[in-house]
Amino acid sequence: MIIYKNNDFYIEVHESEIPWLKIFTTTQYKELTHLPKPLRKKLYEVMEIIEEEMLKYYKPEKINIAAFGNYLPHVHIHVMARYKKDSYFPEPMWGKKQREGLLDLPAADLFYAQLLTKINTL
Amino acid sequence: MIIYKNNDFYIEVHESEIPWLKIFTTTQYKELTHLPKPLRKKLYEVMEIIEEEMLKYYKPEKINIAAFGNYLPHVHIHVMARYKKDSYFPEPMWGKKQREGLLDLPAADLFYAQLLTKINTL
Repeated sequence: MIIYKNNDFYIEVHESEIPWLKIFTTTQYKELTHLPKPLRKKLYEVMEIIEEEMLKYYKPEKINIAAFGNYLPHVHIHVMARYKKDSYFPEPMWGKKQREGLLDLPAADLFYAQLLTKINTL
Repeated sequence: MIIYKNNDFYIEVHESEIPWLKIFTTTQYKELTHLPKPLRKKLYEVMEIIEEEMLKYYKPEKINIAAFGNYLPHVHIHVMARYKKDSYFPEPMWGKKQREGLLDLPAADLFYAQLLTKINTL
């Protein structure tokens, strides 16, 4: 599900037990440093806003950030809110499963609404 | 092995079959957005220089970037040069092993020297 889109980037929800968003550039670039500098700056700002809003709203144990793109060579940044009781912690979400995660998180709708209010100030 | 250090950050080699560096802030912060903004900006610049220098020197298939800190809640950014023939590609380095990696890479010494020349221009 795409929750935000403009000419430069869009934000997509990654379906998961944890709060997990992905920021994609609208134009496809393979590597982060292939982006024009103003677009890189904007992407970092969006990433930081998502981190701050996740910290406030979801109060996770830790934020995880990743930009791989090995399967899909189109620059995108993952921002994930991690919890001690999620299925993989302290491993990355791509690591070995540690347990059956049991999370009781607040509804995402209000989070998206608050996030987009902040994104719109960019 | 630490290859660079100043008052703001240091760069450490992560021992691996692939070129893999970690950038740590000298002062410990838990989350990226806990860093003062000028320090965040500097960290991103260092990350971008490492990516650009890895692309030039090692000609990898893809650069991977990650900031987790679940085991060690001290902000650090991983920058990894990935190859189709490394042990995990296209999985992240934390994922499921795909094969016995067989890489023939140029010596790291010259890479570090070239990288530090660039870092010193910051």
